[in-house]
Amino acid sequence: MTGEVQKLIAKAKVLIEALPYLRTFADKTFVIKYGGQAMVSDELKKSVMMDIILLKYIGINPIVVHGGGAEVTQMLNRLGKEAVFANGLRVTDKETMEIVEMVLTGKVNKEIVSLINSHGGKAVGLSGKDSKLLVAQKRPLEPVSGSDEMVDLGYVGDIVQVNPDVIHTLSAEDYIPVISSIGVGLDGESLNINADHVAGQLAAALSAEKLILLTDVEGIFADADDPATLISTLPKAQALEMIKNGRINKGMIPKVQACLTALKHGVTRTHIIDGRLPHSLLLEIFTDHGIGTMVTA
Amino acid sequence: MTGEVQKLIAKAKVLIEALPYLRTFADKTFVIKYGGQAMVSDELKKSVMMDIILLKYIGINPIVVHGGGAEVTQMLNRLGKEAVFANGLRVTDKETMEIVEMVLTGKVNKEIVSLINSHGGKAVGLSGKDSKLLVAQKRPLEPVSGSDEMVDLGYVGDIVQVNPDVIHTLSAEDYIPVISSIGVGLDGESLNINADHVAGQLAAALSAEKLILLTDVEGIFADADDPATLISTLPKAQALEMIKNGRINKGMIPKVQACLTALKHGVTRTHIIDGRLPHSLLLEIFTDHGIGTMVTA
Amino acid sequence: MTGEVQKLIAKAKVLIEALPYLRTFADKTFVIKYGGQAMVSDELKKSVMMDIILLKYIGINPIVVHGGGAEVTQMLNRLGKEAVFANGLRVTDKETMEIVEMVLTGKVNKEIVSLINSHGGKAVGLSGKDSKLLVAQKRPLEPVSGSDEMVDLGYVGDIVQVNPDVIHTLSAEDYIPVISSIGVGLDGESLNINADHVAGQLAAALSAEKLILLTDVEGIFADADDPATLISTLPKAQALEMIKNGRINKGMIPKVQACLTALKHGVTRTHIIDGRLPHSLLLEIFTDHGIGTMVTA
Amino acid sequence: MTGEVQKLIAKAKVLIEALPYLRTFADKTFVIKYGGQAMVSDELKKSVMMDIILLKYIGINPIVVHGGGAEVTQMLNRLGKEAVFANGLRVTDKETMEIVEMVLTGKVNKEIVSLINSHGGKAVGLSGKDSKLLVAQKRPLEPVSGSDEMVDLGYVGDIVQVNPDVIHTLSAEDYIPVISSIGVGLDGESLNINADHVAGQLAAALSAEKLILLTDVEGIFADADDPATLISTLPKAQALEMIKNGRINKGMIPKVQACLTALKHGVTRTHIIDGRLPHSLLLEIFTDHGIGTMVTA
Amino acid sequence: MTGEVQKLIAKAKVLIEALPYLRTFADKTFVIKYGGQAMVSDELKKSVMMDIILLKYIGINPIVVHGGGAEVTQMLNRLGKEAVFANGLRVTDKETMEIVEMVLTGKVNKEIVSLINSHGGKAVGLSGKDSKLLVAQKRPLEPVSGSDEMVDLGYVGDIVQVNPDVIHTLSAEDYIPVISSIGVGLDGESLNINADHVAGQLAAALSAEKLILLTDVEGIFADADDPATLISTLPKAQALEMIKNGRINKGMIPKVQACLTALKHGVTRTHIIDGRLPHSLLLEIFTDHGIGTMVTA
Amino acid sequence: MTGEVQKLIAKAKVLIEALPYLRTFADKTFVIKYGGQAMVSDELKKSVMMDIILLKYIGINPIVVHGGGAEVTQMLNRLGKEAVFANGLRVTDKETMEIVEMVLTGKVNKEIVSLINSHGGKAVGLSGKDSKLLVAQKRPLEPVSGSDEMVDLGYVGDIVQVNPDVIHTLSAEDYIPVISSIGVGLDGESLNINADHVAGQLAAALSAEKLILLTDVEGIFADADDPATLISTLPKAQALEMIKNGRINKGMIPKVQACLTALKHGVTRTHIIDGRLPHSLLLEIFTDHGIGTMVTA
Repeated sequence: MTGEVQKLIAKAKVLIEALPYLRTFADKTFVIKYGGQAMVSDELKKSVMMDIILLKYIGINPIVVHGGGAEVTQMLNRLGKEAVFANGLRVTDKETMEIVEMVLTGKVNKEIVSLINSHGGKAVGLSGKDSKLLVAQKRPLEPVSGSDEMVDLGYVGDIVQVNPDVIHTLSAEDYIPVISSIGVGLDGESLNINADHVAGQLAAALSAEKLILLTDVEGIFADADDPATLISTLPKAQALEMIKNGRINKGMIPKVQACLTALKHGVTRTHIIDGRLPHSLLLEIFTDHGIGTMVTA
Repeated sequence: MTGEVQKLIAKAKVLIEALPYLRTFADKTFVIKYGGQAMVSDELKKSVMMDIILLKYIGINPIVVHGGGAEVTQMLNRLGKEAVFANGLRVTDKETMEIVEMVLTGKVNKEIVSLINSHGGKAVGLSGKDSKLLVAQKRPLEPVSGSDEMVDLGYVGDIVQVNPDVIHTLSAEDYIPVISSIGVGLDGESLNINADHVAGQLAAALSAEKLILLTDVEGIFADADDPATLISTLPKAQALEMIKNGRINKGMIPKVQACLTALKHGVTRTHIIDGRLPHSLLLEIFTDHGIGTMVTA
Repeated sequence: MTGEVQKLIAKAKVLIEALPYLRTFADKTFVIKYGGQAMVSDELKKSVMMDIILLKYIGINPIVVHGGGAEVTQMLNRLGKEAVFANGLRVTDKETMEIVEMVLTGKVNKEIVSLINSHGGKAVGLSGKDSKLLVAQKRPLEPVSGSDEMVDLGYVGDIVQVNPDVIHTLSAEDYIPVISSIGVGLDGESLNINADHVAGQLAAALSAEKLILLTDVEGIFADADDPATLISTLPKAQALEMIKNGRINKGMIPKVQACLTALKHGVTRTHIIDGRLPHSLLLEIFTDHGIGTMVTA
Repeated sequence: MTGEVQKLIAKAKVLIEALPYLRTFADKTFVIKYGGQAMVSDELKKSVMMDIILLKYIGINPIVVHGGGAEVTQMLNRLGKEAVFANGLRVTDKETMEIVEMVLTGKVNKEIVSLINSHGGKAVGLSGKDSKLLVAQKRPLEPVSGSDEMVDLGYVGDIVQVNPDVIHTLSAEDYIPVISSIGVGLDGESLNINADHVAGQLAAALSAEKLILLTDVEGIFADADDPATLISTLPKAQALEMIKNGRINKGMIPKVQACLTALKHGVTRTHIIDGRLPHSLLLEIFTDHGIGTMVTA
Repeated sequence: MTGEVQKLIAKAKVLIEALPYLRTFADKTFVIKYGGQAMVSDELKKSVMMDIILLKYIGINPIVVHGGGAEVTQMLNRLGKEAVFANGLRVTDKETMEIVEMVLTGKVNKEIVSLINSHGGKAVGLSGKDSKLLVAQKRPLEPVSGSDEMVDLGYVGDIVQVNPDVIHTLSAEDYIPVISSIGVGLDGESLNINADHVAGQLAAALSAEKLILLTDVEGIFADADDPATLISTLPKAQALEMIKNGRINKGMIPKVQACLTALKHGVTRTHIIDGRLPHSLLLEIFTDHGIGTMVTA
Repeated sequence: MTGEVQKLIAKAKVLIEALPYLRTFADKTFVIKYGGQAMVSDELKKSVMMDIILLKYIGINPIVVHGGGAEVTQMLNRLGKEAVFANGLRVTDKETMEIVEMVLTGKVNKEIVSLINSHGGKAVGLSGKDSKLLVAQKRPLEPVSGSDEMVDLGYVGDIVQVNPDVIHTLSAEDYIPVISSIGVGLDGESLNINADHVAGQLAAALSAEKLILLTDVEGIFADADDPATLISTLPKAQALEMIKNGRINKGMIPKVQACLTALKHGVTRTHIIDGRLPHSLLLEIFTDHGIGTMVTA
């Protein structure tokens, strides 16, 4: 047997190793929050898209959710408008909201759609306004963290209802839905929603098998300064404790909250994984212990 | 019988008058190009949306196509970028294309979708990039009209293929598709397409019963200066002649071309009507002679 | 804008006004008891048929029930047979029953069917014998009202079972079922059933949204002699009280009973309306307060 | 083995003998013209109904067509109206037509329906007016046979179109359609059609496997006076010859014509059989050589 | 009426007599244990196959289960291997198991399949290994009856799970499943299962209407020596009592147990009938009191 | 990035490499002739089964065909019966045929079925007798190759009709059909058919995308003695030439013939590959140039 053939056989064995996972996940829905570095590097972009298309072909039903803060800030800059943040969220006045929506729904979303389609998938982009997929309401005034002052975050919304019918319609015909994190208020106005929250709520509404959040760290660490302390499995109680004592903080908070929301509504597994790793989605799905941190009920 | 009751009976008779049209158009597809003044005035906007929702409820299948040139120009101005036109088309460099796409797909499209949904319809917005609905190619260099000079229109595209499956999927589940006039090139790039052309091509690909183009004039006039010369029915030969001799000109040219494209592919009736008239869609559909100009094969 | 156009726009607005009702009643079943003057005047006949066809086209599912006492009496006269009534019901001997069935099922029913079909509907006539739609049993001897004497009403029946499968089969294929008020006894014999009762029982068995009884008065009056006392909404308790004290009497009793039967089995709204009014069906359905008297649970 | 058991085994063998016919006729449509003595004798009535129900249970799709001349004449007599015939057809004035329709559709049809339902079948009665099943036109003036005089047969019609959709709808849900020989004219008027013709046309429109006409003779005889000359198989050419030379005459003519119509439109086998024989339908279907006369293409 | 015709009519009456049973059993599942003399005599074989095919054609859903002990013993003899029995069961070592499986699945099963197919049915053979239809486990050591000694029956199995999906798949497409009494162990090994038990368990898993066991006696007798004491209906309590006191013994025990298993899981009727009688299946099904012994809950 | 992670990423890349093949082969049918060494070695058995199950999970529709000559010979030996061959085919007398059928259908088939099921597939075994899948006729006397003498091969058959309905029924419900190479004659008798021929005919009847024959050599060699002359692509003309000149001979002849049969009936690709290679099926399918010899039209 030549070396070439032996290499081929090794490859075939990799496919065979995937078999138990194929069995487990056939016809299941995975909600994937796409973001961070994986949305910047051309190579990583392609790697994630290929992973998503592969999932579809082998009988898994991927749903992609994305935000796009960096691109929004860039467009605001071009318009000479400063990005303002409070409590880790963008203060979104009417003009900013218009830009947020245009960038997320009219630019970022279509780039993802087009990338999937170019590599042989069949993607359709949606925003939360389409068929009222994500009904939201404006967040009330809230105290600035660590202060008495109240802040009006403007057109920042929280989801009050998910109408997932259009997702089912598209998935049933083998389209891959790609969803921008824009909600629709009761008066039809646009609202800016945290994309992690959108992913968590969609996973809940779709009774997804998995919620997978791509981010730019390896996972959650017991000690942020010690890379050896990556937490493989994080139970809810411990997660809440770590939020309270500040070890989970900043952008990781909505991610963990999204996981907890999903778990509460029956999603089986939720994962925070490192999107900087090529094919991180496949690694999470097709290896026994997975990668990153799994948050559990 | 009181006057109140007589008024009610008169209303009932109006409904009954609609019956023959309901019979004729049951389950038929109408492609509606939405634009002009009807996209600006709040009252007209609502009037058109109500018309579209009514069509859906009475068993007609409306497909909405839109452009949005005015809003694009406005955004370019905000970015300090000048809008350049040649041969009646926007010269679309890469940066302009990005703005065109964001405005049409991320703003105008979602406003229409949200307006329909607010009034009880179920709309889903699409661009030509979604599941490669509108595959286009860049227009080659063309001579500036009335000159030897050649102009590169940039990211202006012409449709080479329509993949209407996603429209069928959505219509079958009673969604109203709303489509922005953005195409996708062979390399996945965005292309700016004339919305009238998009409407004509979609009507053709969907074997629509009617193509209706809303515009800001009453129709086509034999003598542009004499309002008494509105042409009710314009046969193809005469239309081509009027384009040649310049009586049909400027923005009316792509509208008439869209009608001819649709007619060539089996669309039964094509209409250019006055979108400034409240409920112009219903008037065209539910009156015997219709309104505006009907272009015929 | 010419006056002609303004008139057209007014018409379009009437259609638009119908929209909320279309939304509310889409795919709902309406059982309509057709009778009285509306079954005599050619103009009213046509008006009712057009209303019914319109309902079908806009997505409502109309079921028509009819009797035909006047035509029966006329045929009995031609045969030299006197019509005998007791307690407001026709005393139906075997020969009379044969005539009742022939007239209702073989004449009146087919005239309605043919009228609907001539105006573009797709009607199919049924009697309660078809696939045992209305299983009934002979009414036992009953005392003549205001007397000790007992009367045998003969082949007068009361419904004991409704088998609505054939209605579902026909409605699903967009036929309009037209049902004559003939029941079938346990031995296969024909039984004469009050058509109002048939309508009430069918509405119940079909879980109809509405039961609408066409009659020859404007509705139920608090004081029969004062046209200003038309009762718009009549709750069950008050209806029973008015039957008891005789203010509701004669032919109005079975109509009110039919409404109460329907309400008891979950029909949402029941109406007694004036069939002498052109398009009374549409008026009831497409105006906010309706017409006639609504009986409520 | 006791005699009782041997008798049982003999019965079982009869069932087994039916097997090849079950295989041949599974899911096939049989149009059965019911009439003559079999529609008079209570015993024969029941025998035919049982046969029809059995056919349905074993997977054949029976369609029953009937006339009812004797009952019509009887009702006319009761009304003091004389039955007039010309060219073997009832001269049908407007009043007669009304009686014909009432008797056939409102009495005879419902008796058959009720009889089938009483014995465990699921029958639904139709006339040619239901959903325009049988569209007909008035027969023009025709010469009285053997004379120069012309006769207006009145409301006697000839079928110009069969719309069998409602038959398919009912058969698909396992109903047995029972059809009275009344047609509908272009203006919605009732027309009296020969029931044999109706059967022939329906068999053609339904692409039936068999057309079976029950009559009161054993079949067609080469020599009407010699019972030994029963023709088992009658080819079209010979049939036409026998009509020409008068050996086939009177009421047998429309029967043979019905067979020829059916054969012309692809019906496989057509039979004229003796309805006076108990279970003649089963005998024709479940024996090798059949009974009566088979007319062939 | 000739004698020939009278004979035909008598035959037709037999078919009509079957009608009430057709109604009762339409679309019901019958599990039939085929064995004994009926599997040896060519004439009886054909008689049973014809019965089964007839059942299928008239809308009943027959499932055939078989063993084949005699043929196994014969093949063992050809191989010079002695058949050993303990407690009425074949002691099944590995080599014997291989022969048992080959004979039952590769020979007996295919003969039955081929016989049904030759006579116009559509049979498909299965063993309990196909799609894990019959999951079983090895029977533990058990005491030899009437002794302290323990015996290892080897590859004799008891059913622990029935996966009837493949039966439903085949039945839905009108195939007649024929099942050999081989089970599959948890490690994929073959196990020899009593065919009566297989029939009982399948009837239970399929919610069959009837379980019918063909055997070589007329039924169960109160007094084995007195043919006049055939028990027509045997209630569970009495059956258990008779097993206890030895009146039911040997090969009749698993038959009665199969009936009790089926009854416990909702099978309506269970029958032990005489397979030596031609058409015994039809006799049981199409006569009022049936034949053999009916075991009841 | 640790070495562990790099290894995982390499594995993910292998999965991604499979994507274009998944796209190409989604929902396609592959007929796989299983035999030779791959049916002997436990490791190879498992490797082939895993490959087949994987194909099913990723949306390909595998159909397995097998013979089993070695096991037949072994059983014949145990029975003291000598295996006789002529023209490379087993001379199959009645007793031999019985053994062939038992071994192939009752032993080899069930082992394959059980092996697939043990590893998570859902296999159902069939022989050509099930629902007359493979109708065959006895081969006429033929001359012994290189001689004038005629030989009667006995129960050796050639396929005359394939009835693939049962395959479609099973595949549609995600069963993997496993088919033994036994045909059924017109009289229901068993016939021994070359398994390569069965595979070729089934591929033709199923309009398979691929026919893959596993064998014990690397493929077809231009020069049998020079392993460097493996023919990658063998056009039909060259194949016929090589059979004629004897370079293709013995057991390779029916394999090549099977390929040619399949190609003639529209099968896209046919392959003769080395079953001794682990995962040879996957290698053939998921590598660009495939392995073994591809026979082409």
